[in-house]
Amino acid sequence: MGRKLVAVNPALEERHWEQIRAAAEKHGFEALFFREDAQALPHLGDAEIVFGQSAALAKNSPRLRWLCTPSAGVNQFSAPDAFASPCAVLTNSSGAYGVTISEHIVMLALEMLRRQMDYNAIVQRREWKRDLPVRSIKGSRITLLGTGDIGRETALRLRAFGPAWLLGVNRSGNNPRGLFDRVLPQSRLDEALPQTDLLVISLPGTPETDHMLDARRLSLLSDQALIINVGRGTVIDQKALENELRRNRLCAALDVFEQEPLPGDDPLWDCPHLLMAPHVAGNMTLPYTKDRITALFLEDFENYCAGRPLLRQVDLKKGY
Amino acid sequence: MGRKLVAVNPALEERHWEQIRAAAEKHGFEALFFREDAQALPHLGDAEIVFGQSAALAKNSPRLRWLCTPSAGVNQFSAPDAFASPCAVLTNSSGAYGVTISEHIVMLALEMLRRQMDYNAIVQRREWKRDLPVRSIKGSRITLLGTGDIGRETALRLRAFGPAWLLGVNRSGNNPRGLFDRVLPQSRLDEALPQTDLLVISLPGTPETDHMLDARRLSLLSDQALIINVGRGTVIDQKALENELRRNRLCAALDVFEQEPLPGDDPLWDCPHLLMAPHVAGNMTLPYTKDRITALFLEDFENYCAGRPLLRQVDLKKGY
Repeated sequence: MGRKLVAVNPALEERHWEQIRAAAEKHGFEALFFREDAQALPHLGDAEIVFGQSAALAKNSPRLRWLCTPSAGVNQFSAPDAFASPCAVLTNSSGAYGVTISEHIVMLALEMLRRQMDYNAIVQRREWKRDLPVRSIKGSRITLLGTGDIGRETALRLRAFGPAWLLGVNRSGNNPRGLFDRVLPQSRLDEALPQTDLLVISLPGTPETDHMLDARRLSLLSDQALIINVGRGTVIDQKALENELRRNRLCAALDVFEQEPLPGDDPLWDCPHLLMAPHVAGNMTLPYTKDRITALFLEDFENYCAGRPLLRQVDLKKGY
Repeated sequence: MGRKLVAVNPALEERHWEQIRAAAEKHGFEALFFREDAQALPHLGDAEIVFGQSAALAKNSPRLRWLCTPSAGVNQFSAPDAFASPCAVLTNSSGAYGVTISEHIVMLALEMLRRQMDYNAIVQRREWKRDLPVRSIKGSRITLLGTGDIGRETALRLRAFGPAWLLGVNRSGNNPRGLFDRVLPQSRLDEALPQTDLLVISLPGTPETDHMLDARRLSLLSDQALIINVGRGTVIDQKALENELRRNRLCAALDVFEQEPLPGDDPLWDCPHLLMAPHVAGNMTLPYTKDRITALFLEDFENYCAGRPLLRQVDLKKGY
């Protein structure tokens, strides 16, 4: 029985499969590619490596040694019995999404600052109204909660617009590559919030980040503050945020939600001052992202075959 | 009879009036402030300086020596009989709009690349659909037609996103401050168009720029090319663009139109692949813009009073 690599991904293209196939063959692996879990399930019994993102893949691969998820988030693998195999390691694709999500963040920031949703409604009514007060990234006090790949790529882009400052908030308080004007440890988040015009959240969903933005912390933000969340929906107390928005405080752009898909009868759908999207900031529809996911997997595949440590191994206790 | 300065502007605030009043008094001018033309008209008979943007101000100021318009465009003053006074000079506020318009351009580029209008429609239908192919500024070939204040500020911001290249096109072919990877003279525009993913137009409305993007030049763009026009609507043959969009070629974001306001029955209102706004990219609703307009006027006011050349004098024959 040869060594087997099973990849499941609806977004990757033939050229990505070709790259993976060539690398697998070089190291004596048989590589199988599927677009959906259901097709892959019958082949997981003797899979040594799985490259895919659903919980079912971990649950149904008893001989698994390594699972690489093309996502950055790993919540789906956090249950104690998530892996059928006793000695599987998990890596993620952190680093593949900074480019696409940072572009999404800049877009959302500008849409909120420049009242684009209001202007879209004006155009739909065929009106020629042009006097809505707008704001600018230039001169804005920006706090980035999360300074990983997404936070860093966002800082690089926002810098070009001349913000008043870019304040990072992370666990260590360290300033990665000096990209931020200052970095505070998360224990001092409360100090940052009252002086924030735009709060950008790119945190993973972990027990530590759960409802980090609760009603009390939301109340520390000024009435005019803008919030963008592209990390995990659980970081914000969604009901508390909705309450603020409905009393005309804050303005928010959410790409992620506490429950996804957002239920069809959720009151958020018609909440004012809220710009929503169905978790698309970092999805795999951008060719560059697909190329990066494949390149990161192949990098760790070479490490795996050479017996070297994997670069993006996840500590499931921490959740990232 | 003292020297008189009449300012007409609905957007400027008390702090701007205060600045102008103080400077005027220092130089022996009486300063009058109005929010609308109608209020100002009775006071124009002996106005030496007018700070305002409508044609009626020039037409009704027989003793005018200097008119400063807070706009960048000066089309409204281009008629041979635009000025009642035989020796009035005109200055504009070019340089006040680069910050706000460049932010608008980046927003529009990202909205088109990331299918934001389609995702907004999906959210309005409460759907959880997330597989639309998106594109990125990173790796895009960007042509900036017009390399003035707006083009330069836009280049500064787009650079941070990692485009394949920033190609400027202007009259001289000179590369201002080296901000562009290359600059072609307008005579070679045809060479740039087939290799353009995103075309950003920030040209003034002049006889030379009228319909510069005509049906033939539009046909040189690839099917997937994106166009943003924030200059003057006359630069694009609007009907030719509409024809392209209706046959599913190109995607465009227009802030300006051949006729403004756009008539309520214009077919553009429901044209596909078109993102419209009622000429808001550079309007005076951003505090920074108002500050800049006032500062630029006061700079030239000092020049005027000292007998020095005015910095932003318009050559009405050229139109900028």
